[in-house]
Amino acid sequence: MLPRGRPRALGAAALLLLLLLLGFLLFDGRLRRAAALDGDPGAGPGDHNRSDCGPQPPPPPKCELLHVAIVCAGHNSSRDVITLVKSMLFYRKNPLHLHLVTDAVARNILETLFHTWMVPAVRVSFYHADQLKPQVSWIPNKHYSGLYGLMKLVLPSALPAELARVIVLDTDVTFASDISELWALFAHFSDTQAIGLVENQSDWYLGNLWKNHRPWPALGRGFNTGVILLRLDRLRQAGWEQMWRLTARRELLSLPATSLADQDIFNAVIKEHPGLVQRLPCVWNVQLSDHTLAERCYSEASDLKVIHWNSPKKLRVKNKHVEFFRNFYLTFLEYDGNLLRRELFVCPSQPPPGAEQLQQALAQLDEEDPCFEFRQQQLTVHRVHVTFLPHEPPPPRPHDVTLVAQLSMDRLQMLEALCRHWPGPMSLALYLTDAEAQQFLHFVEASPVLAARQDVAYHVVYREGPLYPVNQLRNVALAQALTPYVFLSDIDFLPAYSLYDYLRASIEQLGLGSWRKAALVVPAFETLRYRFSFPHSKVELLALLDAGTLYTFRYHEWPRGHAPTDYARWREAQAPYRVQWAADYEPYVVVPRDCPRYDPRFVGFGWNKVAHIVELDAQEYELLVLPEAFTIHLPHAPSLDISRFRSSPTYRDCLQALKDEFHQDLSRHHGAAALKYLPALQQPQSPARG
Amino acid sequence: MLPRGRPRALGAAALLLLLLLLGFLLFDGRLRRAAALDGDPGAGPGDHNRSDCGPQPPPPPKCELLHVAIVCAGHNSSRDVITLVKSMLFYRKNPLHLHLVTDAVARNILETLFHTWMVPAVRVSFYHADQLKPQVSWIPNKHYSGLYGLMKLVLPSALPAELARVIVLDTDVTFASDISELWALFAHFSDTQAIGLVENQSDWYLGNLWKNHRPWPALGRGFNTGVILLRLDRLRQAGWEQMWRLTARRELLSLPATSLADQDIFNAVIKEHPGLVQRLPCVWNVQLSDHTLAERCYSEASDLKVIHWNSPKKLRVKNKHVEFFRNFYLTFLEYDGNLLRRELFVCPSQPPPGAEQLQQALAQLDEEDPCFEFRQQQLTVHRVHVTFLPHEPPPPRPHDVTLVAQLSMDRLQMLEALCRHWPGPMSLALYLTDAEAQQFLHFVEASPVLAARQDVAYHVVYREGPLYPVNQLRNVALAQALTPYVFLSDIDFLPAYSLYDYLRASIEQLGLGSWRKAALVVPAFETLRYRFSFPHSKVELLALLDAGTLYTFRYHEWPRGHAPTDYARWREAQAPYRVQWAADYEPYVVVPRDCPRYDPRFVGFGWNKVAHIVELDAQEYELLVLPEAFTIHLPHAPSLDISRFRSSPTYRDCLQALKDEFHQDLSRHHGAAALKYLPALQQPQSPARG
Repeated sequence: MLPRGRPRALGAAALLLLLLLLGFLLFDGRLRRAAALDGDPGAGPGDHNRSDCGPQPPPPPKCELLHVAIVCAGHNSSRDVITLVKSMLFYRKNPLHLHLVTDAVARNILETLFHTWMVPAVRVSFYHADQLKPQVSWIPNKHYSGLYGLMKLVLPSALPAELARVIVLDTDVTFASDISELWALFAHFSDTQAIGLVENQSDWYLGNLWKNHRPWPALGRGFNTGVILLRLDRLRQAGWEQMWRLTARRELLSLPATSLADQDIFNAVIKEHPGLVQRLPCVWNVQLSDHTLAERCYSEASDLKVIHWNSPKKLRVKNKHVEFFRNFYLTFLEYDGNLLRRELFVCPSQPPPGAEQLQQALAQLDEEDPCFEFRQQQLTVHRVHVTFLPHEPPPPRPHDVTLVAQLSMDRLQMLEALCRHWPGPMSLALYLTDAEAQQFLHFVEASPVLAARQDVAYHVVYREGPLYPVNQLRNVALAQALTPYVFLSDIDFLPAYSLYDYLRASIEQLGLGSWRKAALVVPAFETLRYRFSFPHSKVELLALLDAGTLYTFRYHEWPRGHAPTDYARWREAQAPYRVQWAADYEPYVVVPRDCPRYDPRFVGFGWNKVAHIVELDAQEYELLVLPEAFTIHLPHAPSLDISRFRSSPTYRDCLQALKDEFHQDLSRHHGAAALKYLPALQQPQSPARG
Repeated sequence: MLPRGRPRALGAAALLLLLLLLGFLLFDGRLRRAAALDGDPGAGPGDHNRSDCGPQPPPPPKCELLHVAIVCAGHNSSRDVITLVKSMLFYRKNPLHLHLVTDAVARNILETLFHTWMVPAVRVSFYHADQLKPQVSWIPNKHYSGLYGLMKLVLPSALPAELARVIVLDTDVTFASDISELWALFAHFSDTQAIGLVENQSDWYLGNLWKNHRPWPALGRGFNTGVILLRLDRLRQAGWEQMWRLTARRELLSLPATSLADQDIFNAVIKEHPGLVQRLPCVWNVQLSDHTLAERCYSEASDLKVIHWNSPKKLRVKNKHVEFFRNFYLTFLEYDGNLLRRELFVCPSQPPPGAEQLQQALAQLDEEDPCFEFRQQQLTVHRVHVTFLPHEPPPPRPHDVTLVAQLSMDRLQMLEALCRHWPGPMSLALYLTDAEAQQFLHFVEASPVLAARQDVAYHVVYREGPLYPVNQLRNVALAQALTPYVFLSDIDFLPAYSLYDYLRASIEQLGLGSWRKAALVVPAFETLRYRFSFPHSKVELLALLDAGTLYTFRYHEWPRGHAPTDYARWREAQAPYRVQWAADYEPYVVVPRDCPRYDPRFVGFGWNKVAHIVELDAQEYELLVLPEAFTIHLPHAPSLDISRFRSSPTYRDCLQALKDEFHQDLSRHHGAAALKYLPALQQPQSPARG
């Protein structure tokens, strides 16, 4: 293929050169302006930057849709992309269409995220990275971005044929300005230019960094491909697909692999076809590598437009002004993404899916209603970032069970103990702000116990509103459980060390889910001691119970919650036994993953688990208590929600209103059978945790 | 005075008119450009805004110092100013000099805040509002901004005589752009113009809002004084002091009072001297009052420069796009102010006081030191916002005592109970992020118990770093206590209901602080129950102790911490008794306010209170146990720091290193007497809360 392709490439280059010359004659003025923008080698770097009137391109037409393409794979890059997108949204004034080339992991994360984020005037399209792999997997590559970096080369064919222009970004860039200013630079392209790039701010391609350093060919310092303006239409016309492949194949005859992935190939192509490239002002890709020359560029803070963390050390890079840049990055890392839901009200746009109904429902709420906060909280769509940290799905096993729970920052310290007690998969929903999500990340990284566990999936649900959306959180964790069975627990409980194994054996033995529709009850106990010696067996547990070190759960405050479990019978039981539902019963249960969801109307404190058990009973799940299973509640201070419940009659009235509505829905679904639950629903709520 | 002043004012007006005409002839071109910027009445509002090349003023010289004046009084306005300043700092690229006219409350808050914020390239000068009061207090005024609004009128004389230009801002504005762009508009002033203002975006001054509405005189819709460019030099030359007084006095002959404070007077003066005013583009003061016409102005989101929350309803104002504006405001309300410490590295500036030494100390730390986090945390200067919420200092009483404690978000639910148990003054330090500070504010506002207490001072210390700076927090709360005595408590303790009265009586009786250098010990107990009936007397307490419902504090885990209190003796005691210091003693004590500070080197968990008691003993404070005093610890989950301490040998090693250094300092101060404490310091730390 090589001998055939080469003359064609040369021919194309000659044609381009001709076109370039023609363009030069016809568009002399325009080119000169562009040159002024780029600065000439003799000028100081400050000259690039001052936005005086001369070279400032006109802004794109108001409300023009701008296209952005990003390649993203895996859990960590997905987090990076979100920070990049936040910075872009903060400054943007135009509708955006994001074209995301993702692997399955990133797609699951980002699809859920954008769906729940509901940012107005942002469209997102996904493209399968897997399908593009064969096109680049033949290229040997040593760069940390792996195969995914190389995929930028195939965007002209991967993106829709009608798409003429796109801004391509690495996941490790941060915007410090409005992206429309970058888009406006397309106007500087001559008629033959097709790729806008910023020069490299390091001497890498000069090949003088160390002895025997042989970089890929490049024009001078070469270009950095962290930020690219692509005229897709022109690249397609110019036979880009052939062009880069030919160059790459030729260079790979003498070079062992790419060192900087796509960037090496882009540079080699440009060296051959210099007419393709439009040099962009350096401020559009301020490169913070270790020995960066970026300082020459940002002579003024006012000039920073896009910051590129292109050192593998990322934020830990050593650089004179790194504190400045790091603060800038942290701004968007910790920025409350909910605030970016702000309307782009000057550009009418299709509201995101579901947003319109939501707006209408919110508009119908009565602000004077004493339960307004409850109504509003129920309707709130929380941003959800599933598998926030690296996670490996458990191998498919027919009786496997995932522990499902939810928490906020004040329960982080439970995680290590929980990991020690439950060696199986977990799916945990965390209710956090964007800033807290970062603290959580550091917490996990600093803990050898947590960092070692790849089978614990953490799903961040971003905080919004005054009431804890307990059941929405449970539903997120439940929906992300990947095993056929789930153990629906609470974060302040530690299961028996043997529970995971015992549950799997019991599930198999009882035929749970296959021939038997049942919920397996795990009896709950509590200790009032901060530190205590966790029982290793039922025998030890019973001894502690008799000694008064342990109690059955809520024995003092609210025995009704677990009375139907029948602890007296459990003491003696050798085999699972069936119990009957009774008012206020809220046991911890193991059920098939497709069990009913929690009712999201119960926010804050009260009735959230009780309603779920009612629903299980209404759907005729048997309740089977397991004789060797147990879980123990550890002490903690009362939550803010329970404090509010205790002190506010309105709070209690609103909860009663929710219960009434719950029963109406129950009657609608189950008819007369729902009458059974009416007395329970009309009782005043106990002050214990529901 | 009136008859004498009036002809002079008319003469000045004539002179100004003449100068204006002259200016017009000489600077025709410049004026025409300015007119184009302001738009003519026939043009649509969008014409104001597009920043094409024609009317865009040149940016101010790089690194020019910009001056901003703000009048601020009271606790709530101080919070507002900080949000305004954050938005200004976020976009600014120039050094700033803030001129703050403050009452005593705002001065105390803002002086501490800026001192601890240490933002590079920001200077702050304070001016006493009290001294300006006589100059405006004669003006009857109905506006919510009170006397302080009117003080904007006297800025030309109140600010330094050499200051020629200043931007004057209301506390309720938010920047959405770089303030240097606003400063650049000074260049549009003709030679006689002295006041830059945006037109009112309401029909108020047209006088047609309701029947018999008689506003002050104004040119057309009049101007809004939330954002003012002042040429102080010209105003002084033009005899501004006389000018506005004359106008105000004359109008007050027929009008009962100002309705909109300074704004009425500015408008009346401008109506008389229209040549003074330069109209600014409306985007520099987008006014979100209830029936605002602002929408005519912001035809594009890209044009918003300054948002003005000039409805008394502030963020609850009804407005079609209020969600957009509110999100914008919340961005800065919740913005982590620490991130604004970023250097303005292109403009060399004097570092803020203390910043240089701090930088040096931080630079000397070894990142590879296993205790690096401890060292860094000790050196961290936290931003401090004292009296975050309205607070009334307690009346001076010779034996009064303030409860001093510190907390973070996870202990907020303690506050109500604490208020019920302690009816006296409290000084509490809260360790929060900027966003959490807002949640805290809502929490207090929603609680009738907390909202009713004006004698509880809340001091926000902003979070930074991984370790809880417990002793720095205690020192902030201690430094802000205003009574002669303090009760040094912890947030998870509830004092006996009678403790406040009993302590004051004991202080008087024992002559504490006057003839006796002593620390009064309040014996500590604990309950392991979430809910329990708090004892109303020592007799009841002893009964609960005997029943096993209460224990002496840390009875199970760490009895040494309180053993010297001698609970057996306390049971029988009828009078205060002296006890001797022993290793690990950490009682809760009452001391004079000038007691030794806590040692800030102890961050995170461990030895923080113990070291303080060592210092008290070394300074020869007697330890006197009070026979009727008690305080009870409520259960809570272990803190993150204690979890880290328990699981990390490095953490324990670092704590030992801190103890060693503490003892070295102790020896330096107390000589051989410090030997007494050496064995205690060499013991390994217990795993209980220190």
